Amino acid sequence: MAFLNDNYLKLRAGYLFPEIARRVNFFCEQNPEAAKKIIRCGIGDVTEPLPSAVITALHKAVDEMGNRETFHGYGPEQGYEFLRHAIAKNDYRDHGLEIADDEIFVSDGSKCDCGSILDILGHDNFIAVMDPVYPVYVDTNVMAGHTGSANEFGAYEGLIYLPCNAENGFVADIPKEKADIVYLCYPNNPTGAVATRDQLTRWVAYALQNEAILLYDAAYEAYISEPDIPHSIYEIPGARECAIEFRSFSKNGGFTGTRCAFTVVPKTLLARTLNGEKKPLHPLWNRRMSTKYNGVSYIVQRGAEALYTTEGKEQVAALIKHYMGNAAILREACKAADLEVFGGVNAPYIWVRTPAGVSSWDMFDMMLNEANIVVTPGSGFGSAGEGYFRISAFNSRARAEEAATRIKAFALA
Amino acid sequence: MAFLNDNYLKLRAGYLFPEIARRVNFFCEQNPEAAKKIIRCGIGDVTEPLPSAVITALHKAVDEMGNRETFHGYGPEQGYEFLRHAIAKNDYRDHGLEIADDEIFVSDGSKCDCGSILDILGHDNFIAVMDPVYPVYVDTNVMAGHTGSANEFGAYEGLIYLPCNAENGFVADIPKEKADIVYLCYPNNPTGAVATRDQLTRWVAYALQNEAILLYDAAYEAYISEPDIPHSIYEIPGARECAIEFRSFSKNGGFTGTRCAFTVVPKTLLARTLNGEKKPLHPLWNRRMSTKYNGVSYIVQRGAEALYTTEGKEQVAALIKHYMGNAAILREACKAADLEVFGGVNAPYIWVRTPAGVSSWDMFDMMLNEANIVVTPGSGFGSAGEGYFRISAFNSRARAEEAATRIKAFALA
Repeated sequence: MAFLNDNYLKLRAGYLFPEIARRVNFFCEQNPEAAKKIIRCGIGDVTEPLPSAVITALHKAVDEMGNRETFHGYGPEQGYEFLRHAIAKNDYRDHGLEIADDEIFVSDGSKCDCGSILDILGHDNFIAVMDPVYPVYVDTNVMAGHTGSANEFGAYEGLIYLPCNAENGFVADIPKEKADIVYLCYPNNPTGAVATRDQLTRWVAYALQNEAILLYDAAYEAYISEPDIPHSIYEIPGARECAIEFRSFSKNGGFTGTRCAFTVVPKTLLARTLNGEKKPLHPLWNRRMSTKYNGVSYIVQRGAEALYTTEGKEQVAALIKHYMGNAAILREACKAADLEVFGGVNAPYIWVRTPAGVSSWDMFDMMLNEANIVVTPGSGFGSAGEGYFRISAFNSRARAEEAATRIKAFALA
Repeated sequence: MAFLNDNYLKLRAGYLFPEIARRVNFFCEQNPEAAKKIIRCGIGDVTEPLPSAVITALHKAVDEMGNRETFHGYGPEQGYEFLRHAIAKNDYRDHGLEIADDEIFVSDGSKCDCGSILDILGHDNFIAVMDPVYPVYVDTNVMAGHTGSANEFGAYEGLIYLPCNAENGFVADIPKEKADIVYLCYPNNPTGAVATRDQLTRWVAYALQNEAILLYDAAYEAYISEPDIPHSIYEIPGARECAIEFRSFSKNGGFTGTRCAFTVVPKTLLARTLNGEKKPLHPLWNRRMSTKYNGVSYIVQRGAEALYTTEGKEQVAALIKHYMGNAAILREACKAADLEVFGGVNAPYIWVRTPAGVSSWDMFDMMLNEANIVVTPGSGFGSAGEGYFRISAFNSRARAEEAATRIKAFALA
């Protein structure tokens, strides 16, 4: 008699984005005319084409795959040396951060890695997440059996929720409880907040003191515009001893549909066995990748490598400038509509307080029905997100401007 | 204090193929001249370029990604409808097998899926694997905590090993024990054996009777040459109620470095909750993919789709014919060298008994040192593989012929 994993039954209805897609599809079926006008500011998906440097590199790699002499079969599960080196050099060593090529593990997505990292961690850890939170951190812990059931607000028993709100600038305070694993995401998805060097220094100190591990999701680091905001957790001394960093090409290179990301596991990062011995996690992650993964498509890795060329860097900068231009327009529109606005300065997300008495999902439905704009309800990210909604700046300029116009009109209606 | 997953510490030294790579690299460093002559018949990696139909489709998809109007961001985590449909129609419905498009889950590799499938299964299942066995089935169960420690032969406490040997034609006998999850792989990696319709019918009957689930790995189905050997477990009535099938484009389309595969989870497949309720696994796998995965690169999915065009099918047939031509040459060489040979008729692997008294790894080292041929030691696949080695037919014709010549000479030496 085969057993299923009962933990899955604890999961609450649909992962946020499929639920949004379901409501939008339903709306479109019911309102075929309005459907044509919909502007999607919901899921954080890029809209602009891949940089031409990437396109050129992809074509070249495809040609290599069509030729016996230059064909590539199985690659290293951890990623090709050419890409691991480009990453470690450009994103870390050129910024004075000591990360070796073989501490970089190339993968097909940060979402995958954020989930898979639990494979190498024990089941006895106390897990802390921010609230609001990127749902993947929570749901993957539920699946792994690290929680009890969800309460009426969607919070799971056994997880430590760190509230992020306007009072603390959406940066989690150091908890009084002892957490063993802490998920931090800066620039933050969904709030667009960033953590300062001081704040991250306190987190690293907490982790070192408690022998905790920080799972640092920096998927949006390319959007940081303010000076002295750390782009990497490894800018904080001691982080090599307590942090794993996740980064992605989805949001800088526009790879959401092309799929490439990476995870940094320093060799100096240790964790305890059940009998108290300290061992490095690097060989465990390496073994996990060797056994349960086969590496990213050669073609895609060559595309990602092109992001580090001079041309590629310029094109990424232009993409970021484009999306952050949208963010400024949408921020201003919300302000003009008398809405309270956060984020959108160091991240492509604007975090907006709903008018008094309006819930996040009600606001979602109103924006969909009345302005034909898809946003993301804040409560979908956790109970501390209730009373907020997220606007994504990923769009064409024309649509961002049209969305801004509708937001202003909507406020007046 | 963060805990690691202690189960990883039970894993025995390096996953087989990295260990082979280590020995080969060492040999090459020590013997730079001989290194130039090495013929790799070890890891089952394709050598021929991607079919031209795939190359054309990949280029077209790359161009789409470079254009705002045809750009693709996040795709469905389960795979694009165009590919799910092509698979379900061509591989199943056209053969009279009732598989719906949305029972197909596209992924980046069968190795990944074979490991990930454990995510949705409980920890209380009794797991059976064949011996010799593709190491991923075992190692992923060790990582998930489903086993005790390994004994001196590398067999893990708590797993049910089903010996496959010359006596049973390398097809596992139905066990006397009650297993809940059974991994079956036909055409078999490593032995090249196939299961007949009768044998698979007995396995399905066993599964239905015991409410067990068959994890059927059919990555090599394209190599079946004998009529009436089932290509899919779903050719057996009742399999929709007891089997998950894994298939890959790695070995038919040459996608080992391009990365695309799929898993079939019928909606009629149920498993038990801990309190005995029966529930379908399809929504669990769907949730797993939505939460822990982001789908295969759009570009790669378009490439895989091209394998189902008339041109693509012809080109795949030509690839299979090429590799199976190599297999025939290598089989004959081994026979001429008075070695006892299995497989190589419905699979690109030849399974060879070592000369009396020679262990698998000794044979590996002898073949490497004396014939400069890399094979795979049978014992790397489990204790029942001791006394055998595997020769892969994935090679150019010229190298297969040269390997055949050396095998004959080696036997005489």
